[in-house]
Amino acid sequence: MFRVVLVEPHYAGNIGSVARLVKNFGIHQLYLVNPRAYHLSDEAFQWAVHAKDVLERAVVVKSLEEAIKDASVAVGTTAKYYEKLVRRTPVTPRKMAEVLEPYWESDEVAAIVFGREPSGLTNEELDLMDFNVTIPTSPVYPSMNLSHAVAVILYELYTRKHSLKRKYPPPKRAWDTLRRFLREVIRLTNRHNPEEVEKAIMAAYRRGAQTEKEVNALVGILSHCVRRCGREED
Amino acid sequence: MFRVVLVEPHYAGNIGSVARLVKNFGIHQLYLVNPRAYHLSDEAFQWAVHAKDVLERAVVVKSLEEAIKDASVAVGTTAKYYEKLVRRTPVTPRKMAEVLEPYWESDEVAAIVFGREPSGLTNEELDLMDFNVTIPTSPVYPSMNLSHAVAVILYELYTRKHSLKRKYPPPKRAWDTLRRFLREVIRLTNRHNPEEVEKAIMAAYRRGAQTEKEVNALVGILSHCVRRCGREED
Repeated sequence: MFRVVLVEPHYAGNIGSVARLVKNFGIHQLYLVNPRAYHLSDEAFQWAVHAKDVLERAVVVKSLEEAIKDASVAVGTTAKYYEKLVRRTPVTPRKMAEVLEPYWESDEVAAIVFGREPSGLTNEELDLMDFNVTIPTSPVYPSMNLSHAVAVILYELYTRKHSLKRKYPPPKRAWDTLRRFLREVIRLTNRHNPEEVEKAIMAAYRRGAQTEKEVNALVGILSHCVRRCGREED
Repeated sequence: MFRVVLVEPHYAGNIGSVARLVKNFGIHQLYLVNPRAYHLSDEAFQWAVHAKDVLERAVVVKSLEEAIKDASVAVGTTAKYYEKLVRRTPVTPRKMAEVLEPYWESDEVAAIVFGREPSGLTNEELDLMDFNVTIPTSPVYPSMNLSHAVAVILYELYTRKHSLKRKYPPPKRAWDTLRRFLREVIRLTNRHNPEEVEKAIMAAYRRGAQTEKEVNALVGILSHCVRRCGREED
């Protein structure tokens, strides 16, 4: 299971926003370490919208150690690179999600730790982490709002669990039918490089079409063209 | 290049937050369609933090049409699935980032369109889009805050930039030509729902085709079909 840990959050709005994100992405627990803002304030509830239950269930603790002591793995988030310190080489959010994927189906706790708004996690706090994650951002303005960083990290975790799978991908026979009619139309239109043309169109449609209906839509007009052009050819 | 379009944003805080994200992720343009909040208010500036320049440069327009008329591709964001409407099958943010990758190095504009906070984009607005993207979220609470949705989408675009290969996206005129011939072929083949068929095929090809050659390959066979079938019709 996953636990989001906010260390000394300064703004009730951010706490409420994070509660909403916790619910948006099916995260199990929210811990608040020594919050500077009252997490059950009107402002927090307002930002939480339909995640008021998450705020009410949030666990408030006095120290980061307490928030992660029962966790199997603790991941720190940082906007900075500590390239000289090998142990702090951060992973990307995607790599983190890959590494932590098994925690979705486990009672073991993976804690993702976010620092206070103005300054992030301290060096001492980062020393308590198993590894760090950094969101790639523009060097022109690398620093993200806390809740937006949480959004990106939780999105990556959730995507790894529940990738918006093509529920019903086009079956092989639909693609075979498309290829057959496409090939026939290309033949009738006397393209110079029929194989290249077929490859180009099939590749583009392969990448783009997500349902059998979409494949059949193109089959429909191509088959009609074959019938009409073919007849004319006779 | 990329353009973030907010349609009738209701809250100055969200506009400011999005400005910050636009700068965090190196996006080129911010357009505001008929904003309900004053985008240069103190509150907007407060949320923008170090992205006040983005707010000042934001382009305010009166209609969505105006915001996307010069764009090569317009992508709508939606929290809903319209599984029955084939043309609205959404892609994941990751797939969108893959499809739009060439726009990082191009003067052609890719517009990413976000709806108003309470209700998103209307059906009529979605009809103006080339395809749609949906962020996978928990069915328990699927609806994200506007700026958090923007965070996820821009993060995906930016992450993809890092694996940038030089490609040239199909220019707007290539897509316009494809649409013209496709419409003509569909007309000649007497489909039952010509608009649905056109939307489905265009959306699939939009998602999949990465080069002008791929677009022209389909234009080539369709234009030939038009000439031959058209002739037969006479």
